[in-house]
Amino acid sequence: MAGTTHAPAPAGAALDDEAVALDRAHVFHSWSAQGAVAPFVVAGGSGSTVWDHAGRRYLDFSSQLVNTNIGHQHPRVVEAIRAQAAELTTVAPATANLARGRAARAVLGHAPDRFAKVFFTNGGADANENAIRMARLHTGRDKVVSHYRSYHGNTGAAVVATGDWRRVPNEYARGHVHVFGPYLYRSEFWATTPQEECERALTHLERVIQCEGPSSVAAILLESVPGTAGVLVPPPGYLAGVRAIADRYGIVLILDEVMAGFGRTGSWFAFDQHDVVPDLVTFAKGVNSGYVPAGGVLVSEEILATFDERVFPGGLTYSGHPLAMAAVVASVAAMEDEGVVENAAAIGTDVLGPALTALAEAQPLVGEVRGTGVFWALELVADRGTRTPVGADVMGPLKAACLRRGLLPFLAENRVHVVPPCVVTPAQAEEGVALLAEALAEVAPA
Amino acid sequence: MAGTTHAPAPAGAALDDEAVALDRAHVFHSWSAQGAVAPFVVAGGSGSTVWDHAGRRYLDFSSQLVNTNIGHQHPRVVEAIRAQAAELTTVAPATANLARGRAARAVLGHAPDRFAKVFFTNGGADANENAIRMARLHTGRDKVVSHYRSYHGNTGAAVVATGDWRRVPNEYARGHVHVFGPYLYRSEFWATTPQEECERALTHLERVIQCEGPSSVAAILLESVPGTAGVLVPPPGYLAGVRAIADRYGIVLILDEVMAGFGRTGSWFAFDQHDVVPDLVTFAKGVNSGYVPAGGVLVSEEILATFDERVFPGGLTYSGHPLAMAAVVASVAAMEDEGVVENAAAIGTDVLGPALTALAEAQPLVGEVRGTGVFWALELVADRGTRTPVGADVMGPLKAACLRRGLLPFLAENRVHVVPPCVVTPAQAEEGVALLAEALAEVAPA
Repeated sequence: MAGTTHAPAPAGAALDDEAVALDRAHVFHSWSAQGAVAPFVVAGGSGSTVWDHAGRRYLDFSSQLVNTNIGHQHPRVVEAIRAQAAELTTVAPATANLARGRAARAVLGHAPDRFAKVFFTNGGADANENAIRMARLHTGRDKVVSHYRSYHGNTGAAVVATGDWRRVPNEYARGHVHVFGPYLYRSEFWATTPQEECERALTHLERVIQCEGPSSVAAILLESVPGTAGVLVPPPGYLAGVRAIADRYGIVLILDEVMAGFGRTGSWFAFDQHDVVPDLVTFAKGVNSGYVPAGGVLVSEEILATFDERVFPGGLTYSGHPLAMAAVVASVAAMEDEGVVENAAAIGTDVLGPALTALAEAQPLVGEVRGTGVFWALELVADRGTRTPVGADVMGPLKAACLRRGLLPFLAENRVHVVPPCVVTPAQAEEGVALLAEALAEVAPA
Repeated sequence: MAGTTHAPAPAGAALDDEAVALDRAHVFHSWSAQGAVAPFVVAGGSGSTVWDHAGRRYLDFSSQLVNTNIGHQHPRVVEAIRAQAAELTTVAPATANLARGRAARAVLGHAPDRFAKVFFTNGGADANENAIRMARLHTGRDKVVSHYRSYHGNTGAAVVATGDWRRVPNEYARGHVHVFGPYLYRSEFWATTPQEECERALTHLERVIQCEGPSSVAAILLESVPGTAGVLVPPPGYLAGVRAIADRYGIVLILDEVMAGFGRTGSWFAFDQHDVVPDLVTFAKGVNSGYVPAGGVLVSEEILATFDERVFPGGLTYSGHPLAMAAVVASVAAMEDEGVVENAAAIGTDVLGPALTALAEAQPLVGEVRGTGVFWALELVADRGTRTPVGADVMGPLKAACLRRGLLPFLAENRVHVVPPCVVTPAQAEEGVALLAEALAEVAPA
């Protein structure tokens, strides 16, 4: 079980050393100062557990980058990848391929009726790229309004560096406007209740759109539940209010479900819980748990009509890659058959919600607990009155204290995101919270 | 063999119908008007041949999107993917993983000594994104100069839509400047010899940089051999001349080897044939033949030093994805052991070069032949004197005439790109050119 330690196997330890040595010598890492990278070796995994070559096991409360919704190495998905690999790994996007068509059908099966087609990408960033492109061309407008507290991907230059005709429809001189979203714990609107926060956030959004000029705004792009920003579950009515504003001004509503989608919040899409249907949906991660890189855009009938006779000026070599698509088909089918989304919902209601609330009551470091399904955040504060975030002096030791106990945590700024796979069992969820409580107690000021 | 037709198997034909029906119902395609998509079904492949479910076989002179350098379904690469799938499909980028370290070492083994680390991405677009980001932060400048006749990927908005801190170091108000590169057949410089074209293109590039302000230019970004633009092999001395200009003004030279790299031109990198070493190299496609989506950036020691203590503000969930990395390791090893790059060089010198030259002499539609290795283009013209490109009235029927003969061609604007896998045999290369010659004869004006 996770949380226990075995005597490291000598051969395994040598492989761990090789992995670290090669990594330090030759691998450049994301979002890091390269000199400060101290990589943790992952050699294998199963369900909600990962291990290194030496046999040290960890309960994965990170889902890696919040992507292994179906857990590690689900046999059905692994077997689908192996079978597709033996048949056909790769094919040009302009072709037709059964795996791709079946994957599109599987994903659309969980989306509202208005969505008819899928544009597949390699991940979440290029899903958002193409959704923004569709919205701009569909509306003939250029601005995109999104939240300051958001992450939509790391790309922003390749198509403007491109010289051929594919650049021209993608050059937008003006562009990106940011607003504040609802976040009652650190309200930007001097609000004191969820309802007040919701109303004021909607007023702020509409005022910014009015000031920018509604006829210049192509899209409102929001994570249904902002993820890396802190699992900021929107208050009731916010997303429906955004939908009404979008409709009022003829603006396309894009909901980014890259992290929140495919079971993370306890429903197939997070927006299912908010009584709203967007015009475009972007997804990645949980659609196949990242077993093979894949993402995509769900396109509504209205926007499809724009591109029926007009060339869509976007694309990529690995759009609808057969290996990725086989993993999508198997993953969606396994999630359906095994009740994975229902499990995530129940874990949230029955285990993580109560256990994290109890932890917060007992541990003064925790300023707020919020979340749904297997998507939770604990906000750690130096003082509950001032809500001052704790710093690296707490977060660094907290990470070490978790790892020593066999818990792989997801830490962001002053927060612990509790994001195990959607297949986590009640016993594992309880165990993880107990280990986290011990680690917090260890690092809390005396 | 390719080029022959079998009686379609009834069960197979039903699967082809299902593939087309699902595709038309649910799949949104790259770079297309969706109503005009008439997809070609690919069900499987081996080496330089692909087939549909009914058993129709085609000699693949496209390498799909010029990515299957090692051919279709190479057994060693397929087996490596299957083995890695059974062990560990996915892992967070911040971890260390043996497959990733070994893949970095394998790629660096074919690069000049100054490259020490690899930043892995999902494909070529995000490889260029991150190379541009490195160049901007390394130089403290913002402009990027590239060719009009170029393609560097389809992304350009996600990071500016992002609201959190990861946006701020990536917002460049000014940005992208385009110049003309050497292309003697349609010279922009009134040149009549390769040497003149080279000298004038360099003068033009340097004058644009001087006019833009050299201290504002972060990078010159060029495909070593512009690919989709027409396999525009640069004249001797051009890339070395660009290197000298970059050095004169402290500009980072990024060479995009996404299509040209990993054997396509008959060497591991296309720049190997041009006596030049860039500062950053971007790659994708041939690195693992696209069996699993992957790309990356080779980073020089000088640029690495910039990010030793400074956070690199870029990244992605699937950076160094284990399944993609296992495919890289196996693909590079198989290419080494089987002399795949040497085969590409020999096919170019011994078969494609002479055969395409002979075809051009016999067929007035062909205005120019150019290329190297398994990377060739035929420029089709209505009139050899005026060099007027042929239109869709020729290219549409040409595609159909090739497919009827069991040849899968790669057509772009008025050109046929002859881009079979690097493993193509002399007999297949000859057969493909013969089928192309027949197809051209069929569509040529009487």
